[in-house]
Amino acid sequence: MKSIQKKTALSMTEAEEAVRAKLADQGFGVLTEIDVAATLKSKLGVDRGPLKILGACNPGFAHRALKLDEDISLLLPCNVVLAQTDSGTLISAVDPRSLMDSPAFNELAQEAADLLTAALEAVPAS
Amino acid sequence: MKSIQKKTALSMTEAEEAVRAKLADQGFGVLTEIDVAATLKSKLGVDRGPLKILGACNPGFAHRALKLDEDISLLLPCNVVLAQTDSGTLISAVDPRSLMDSPAFNELAQEAADLLTAALEAVPAS
Repeated sequence: MKSIQKKTALSMTEAEEAVRAKLADQGFGVLTEIDVAATLKSKLGVDRGPLKILGACNPGFAHRALKLDEDISLLLPCNVVLAQTDSGTLISAVDPRSLMDSPAFNELAQEAADLLTAALEAVPAS
Repeated sequence: MKSIQKKTALSMTEAEEAVRAKLADQGFGVLTEIDVAATLKSKLGVDRGPLKILGACNPGFAHRALKLDEDISLLLPCNVVLAQTDSGTLISAVDPRSLMDSPAFNELAQEAADLLTAALEAVPAS
């Protein structure tokens, strides 16, 4: 799975606030949120490091993608994952180019990848 | 994108209720929900047919998958999509075998696919 990544010295909470703002700057809203660590703790009693999945969606891209192929709904929204590391937070976004790999999606996937890359790059390194 | 599908004469609302119950029978909870039609209407003013994305997750599978490779978080949860058709509702689930295509995930992806298939098959045809 190809991903777009950004390491930051920010805490999980700070990184989440920053990435939500930078995603919004690029037209992506966060439609869903899963606190993986809390879910696994409550369902299985498992302790693990902080891990959160945000479901980001740019409505314009989603609409264009659905018009190309309704099956793209199986792959929406784009996950943006926050994981706590020893030195801060690792932010990873799914690379739309690896999800939408049919030629019809090339241009759209590249545009979406550019915007997600810009959002992650704009998160402060510390 | 490979998917697991079930056509039913049930309405979207009835199909959603049924698929949530059958997913629960197979150990999948629904962690996220996106009403795509409502979102596109509110963000873009676009009118389109009813389309809903449920994010289904089996905590045991998720935990095993994350232990194999933390990057699987980029692909969780499994989307289960409901789309209105002329004759009822089409339910599609992302096939875990096409998402997790590295050999390390073979067994886990097959097990998850079997359970999702069982859930969709258990939804009444009418």
